Amino acid sequence: MQILDGKKIAAEVRGEIAAEVVQLAAAGKRIPQLVAIIVGNDGASQTYVAGKEKACGECGFKSQVLRFEDAITEQELLVQIAKLNADETVDGFIVQLPLPERINEQKVVEAIDPKKDVDGFHPINVGRMTIGLPSYVSATPAGIMELLKRYRIETSGKHAVVVGRSSIVGRPMMNLLSQKGAPGDCTVTVCHSRTKNIKEICRTADIIVAALGHPEFLTAEMVKQGAVVIDVGITRVPAADTKSGFRLQGDVKYDEVAPKCSYITPVPGGVGPMTIISLMKNTLKAYKKEVYG
Amino acid sequence: MQILDGKKIAAEVRGEIAAEVVQLAAAGKRIPQLVAIIVGNDGASQTYVAGKEKACGECGFKSQVLRFEDAITEQELLVQIAKLNADETVDGFIVQLPLPERINEQKVVEAIDPKKDVDGFHPINVGRMTIGLPSYVSATPAGIMELLKRYRIETSGKHAVVVGRSSIVGRPMMNLLSQKGAPGDCTVTVCHSRTKNIKEICRTADIIVAALGHPEFLTAEMVKQGAVVIDVGITRVPAADTKSGFRLQGDVKYDEVAPKCSYITPVPGGVGPMTIISLMKNTLKAYKKEVYG
Repeated sequence: MQILDGKKIAAEVRGEIAAEVVQLAAAGKRIPQLVAIIVGNDGASQTYVAGKEKACGECGFKSQVLRFEDAITEQELLVQIAKLNADETVDGFIVQLPLPERINEQKVVEAIDPKKDVDGFHPINVGRMTIGLPSYVSATPAGIMELLKRYRIETSGKHAVVVGRSSIVGRPMMNLLSQKGAPGDCTVTVCHSRTKNIKEICRTADIIVAALGHPEFLTAEMVKQGAVVIDVGITRVPAADTKSGFRLQGDVKYDEVAPKCSYITPVPGGVGPMTIISLMKNTLKAYKKEVYG
Repeated sequence: MQILDGKKIAAEVRGEIAAEVVQLAAAGKRIPQLVAIIVGNDGASQTYVAGKEKACGECGFKSQVLRFEDAITEQELLVQIAKLNADETVDGFIVQLPLPERINEQKVVEAIDPKKDVDGFHPINVGRMTIGLPSYVSATPAGIMELLKRYRIETSGKHAVVVGRSSIVGRPMMNLLSQKGAPGDCTVTVCHSRTKNIKEICRTADIIVAALGHPEFLTAEMVKQGAVVIDVGITRVPAADTKSGFRLQGDVKYDEVAPKCSYITPVPGGVGPMTIISLMKNTLKAYKKEVYG
C-alpha cells in the first residue's frame, strides 16, 4: 500500500509555480494576481480564503481579499465583479461560496468572465470540461487528476466508481475520468443516494473516488484488494483530543480500507492540499492565457 | 416486450407543438422561426436539413435554410451568425455540421448566441446541462429522455449503461440519466472503446443506451432479461433490396435482443424521429424564452 501524498505533491507543484514566478519577476514582468471576494463572516469561508491567500504568498503571487458586509446587495456584488473582469492586473478571481440567500449564486458565478473563472464554476468552463476542451477545471477534481498523473497511476480501461454526483466533485470526476487521455479512459460508474447496490458496485472498482461527505462511509468490505482509493470527504467531527475541538474526517474508514489498497489518499494531507494548489495552477494558467488564448 | 415507438411519440409531441402554434397565430402573435445554415453539398447534411425543414412545416413554424458555397470563409460565416443572433424574428438556428475543414467548428458553435443555440452544442448549454440547470439539451439525448418520460419508464435507482462517450450523445446521456429527477436518478456506467469487460457490464444493465455507431454491436448475450434498450445507432449499410441501395442499421442486433427486453427502440422509427422533434421543441422553448428568460 502506498500513500498518495497530496501534501508532498502539492509542495512539488508549488515549487514549480514559484520558480516560474521568480523567472517572471527576474524578467521584469508583471506578477500573477488572484483576488478572492468574501461576503459576510462564515467561519469556514474565512478559513478557506485565508488558506488560499497563504498559498498565493507561497507561490509568489499577488493576492487580494475583498471583504463585504453580509448586507451587500446582488447588484453591488455584480458591480464588483464587473470591475475585476475589467482589471487587467487581475488574472483570476473567485467568489467564496456560500453567499447570503438573498443573492443568486448562479447569477454571480455567470457574471465572472470565463477567462478569469479560476474556480471553474462558470457553465462555459463546465461545458468545455465536459466535452474535453481546454478549460478551468474546478480545483478538487483538477487536484485529483494531478495526483493520479504524478503517481503515474494507470487509469486506461480501469473501472472507476465515483460515489457522489455533486456539481463540484462527483460530476466533474465522472466526466474527466471517462475522457480520452491519461489520466482518463476509465470505464466510469457514478453512484449516489438513489443507488441500490452501492457495496457491490464499489467492490468491482479499480479506482474509487469517495465524494459524498458521509464520514467513514467506505468500509473494507466495499473495497477490492489492490484498489486505488481517493477520499474527498472532509467533514468536521467533534474531537475532545484536539485544540480546535474537532478533526477532519474523510469518507473512507481509513484504518481498515488502507491495508487493502494499492494507493490511498489520507485525510488530511491527501486531496485537500491538491485542491488549493490546483487553484494556484489555474491562476497561473489564466496569467499565461493557456485556456482561452 | 414493448416497442418504444419514437415515430408515434414524435407525432404526439408534434401535435402538441402545432396546436400551440395555431393558438399563437389565432392570437395574432409572431410565429416561431428556426433557421438552418448549410455549407457545401454533403449529401447526408442535405438530407438532415431537409428533414428539419419538413418538421418545421409540420409544426407550423417558419423556417429558412441559408445555403453557402463550400468556399465560404470562416469570417463570412461568423458574420452570418452575428446577423442571426441579432435578428429578433429568428428564435433559434443551427449550423449543420460538418463544416469544411478550413473552418474552426468550435469557434462557429461558440459564436452562436446561447439563447438561440437550439442544437445545444454551445459549451454554456453543455455546462448548464451537466450541472442540472435549464438548458438546451442536444436533440438526440433530449429525445431519448422524452421517450423514457412518455412511456413512464422507471429510472430511479436503475443501472443505466451508456455505450459510447461522444459529446453529442454518450456524454450528455450519462450526465442526464444520473441527474436528480424523473427520468433520471440512475446509477450510470459509461463504456467506450477502452472498456475491457463490456459484455459483462452490459449484462448488469437495467437500461442500455447503445451509441457507438457500430452496427449490431449489442447482442442477446449482452442483455439481461427485462432490460430497456435504446438504440441510437444509424449506420447506413449497403442493401440490395432497397431503392436507395442502403438501409439504416442500429447498434443493436434487434431480432435476437428484442425478445429479452421489456422495452426497445426500433431502427428506424425509434430515436431518429425523437431527435428531430426535440429540435422543434427546443425552438419552441427558445420562442417562449423558457431557458434563459
